[in-house]
Amino acid sequence: MCQLLGLNANTPTDVVFSFTGFATRAEEHRDGFGIAFFEGRGVRLFVDAQSARCSPVAEMVRRYPIRSDNILAHIRKATQGRVALENTHPFQRELWGRYWVFAHNGDLKDFAPPLHASFRPVGDTDSEHAFCWLMQELAKAHAAVPSVAELSATLRELALPIAGRGSFNFLLSNGQALWAHCSTRLAYIERAHPFRRARLADEDLSIDFSAVTAATDRVAVVVTEPLTTDETWTALAPGELAVFQDGHRLALH
Amino acid sequence: MCQLLGLNANTPTDVVFSFTGFATRAEEHRDGFGIAFFEGRGVRLFVDAQSARCSPVAEMVRRYPIRSDNILAHIRKATQGRVALENTHPFQRELWGRYWVFAHNGDLKDFAPPLHASFRPVGDTDSEHAFCWLMQELAKAHAAVPSVAELSATLRELALPIAGRGSFNFLLSNGQALWAHCSTRLAYIERAHPFRRARLADEDLSIDFSAVTAATDRVAVVVTEPLTTDETWTALAPGELAVFQDGHRLALH
Repeated sequence: MCQLLGLNANTPTDVVFSFTGFATRAEEHRDGFGIAFFEGRGVRLFVDAQSARCSPVAEMVRRYPIRSDNILAHIRKATQGRVALENTHPFQRELWGRYWVFAHNGDLKDFAPPLHASFRPVGDTDSEHAFCWLMQELAKAHAAVPSVAELSATLRELALPIAGRGSFNFLLSNGQALWAHCSTRLAYIERAHPFRRARLADEDLSIDFSAVTAATDRVAVVVTEPLTTDETWTALAPGELAVFQDGHRLALH
Repeated sequence: MCQLLGLNANTPTDVVFSFTGFATRAEEHRDGFGIAFFEGRGVRLFVDAQSARCSPVAEMVRRYPIRSDNILAHIRKATQGRVALENTHPFQRELWGRYWVFAHNGDLKDFAPPLHASFRPVGDTDSEHAFCWLMQELAKAHAAVPSVAELSATLRELALPIAGRGSFNFLLSNGQALWAHCSTRLAYIERAHPFRRARLADEDLSIDFSAVTAATDRVAVVVTEPLTTDETWTALAPGELAVFQDGHRLALH
């Protein structure tokens, strides 16, 4: 299985601390890694079919604090699809003049709906197929970029039948918000003033967030398994879709 | 104006030597840089709204020899569109289950055809608009990925009306071939056995290609202005579309 990491903030934030702990897990998830950073409407997407432990690209990400308000990362242990760059998450497409970035953790063995519109997988993973189908169905459901609330309602409906076919933990962002769908395992934390110290679970590293944040900063982090040992993470329930905007979770109705 | 660099080879080749000379020109083309590397069907696309002279991403590209058989790079001096990540070339879209990457040098002040299909610009450059139009028209002209020869014929027809509206030097690749359209300025070189020494025009650096190549290697490099002083570059004529595959230029009929 793979692991997911997402960050959503109300101000461009670097992910060096979280990514360092996360990349440590690449020891056993060595079939590629990828990370996407939104900057306004633009995206930087770094992918590598090497492990995040030894990839020079991952090394640059750990050293160079790229600040972003929506970040998605993925480390891969291949289950379906060869180890190849085109099978490395996150995947990216354009819809309605916005980039959409998607990363998936899980197996969808029985889900291969027909793709009849303009989104086709380039690689051969079940994940990219599901992403193309999501994009196709979003494009059918709305004529142009809808509100975050409307998108969330559509995504919740679309995720339902897919999740019945396997495990479908995913992160999705278009730069406006971060969607997290839990099928088996996802947890999140919201950090806000007063910020405190936190210690990584996977590395002997701690950080005092109060020294690197402003009082108005808000940051939400979503991950397959909690990254820190001394903070309280909230587990998402199977079937739950959470939406994060400006660093906190939105209430969906 | 911007500058373009493309590489097409019959074996995965690193672009460190050419990119080093090319990035030197970023002194006056400081509004961003980008480079795309195809690896099979996959692509790594690195973009930065900083100059290639000081960007940590460019630094990584100079140090880490990513091998690829189709590479496109661009350094930007903004003419239309703000300095922003979403306006940084190359641009990428998916069509027929293949990624397409495009970089443009020139101005298309009077070219804004309607985009009625599924390719929309994310940023606000004339270049991305033209790319979306090219993708839209390619999708209308063919039902699935056509041969390189058929694609070339369609691209030549499509480029004609655009080039009448301004300057339209571009590089385009889908990982199978590299297309180079000259409107005002583009030159190329084909390197093959016996390889020899070459000296950069912009940096005090030379390389002995015979020491780093095999006898069967073939590499074509396309660039806005020749990169080396001691090799013979061929200028493309205004209106000419060249196609490179497996490291040499194809004859088009």
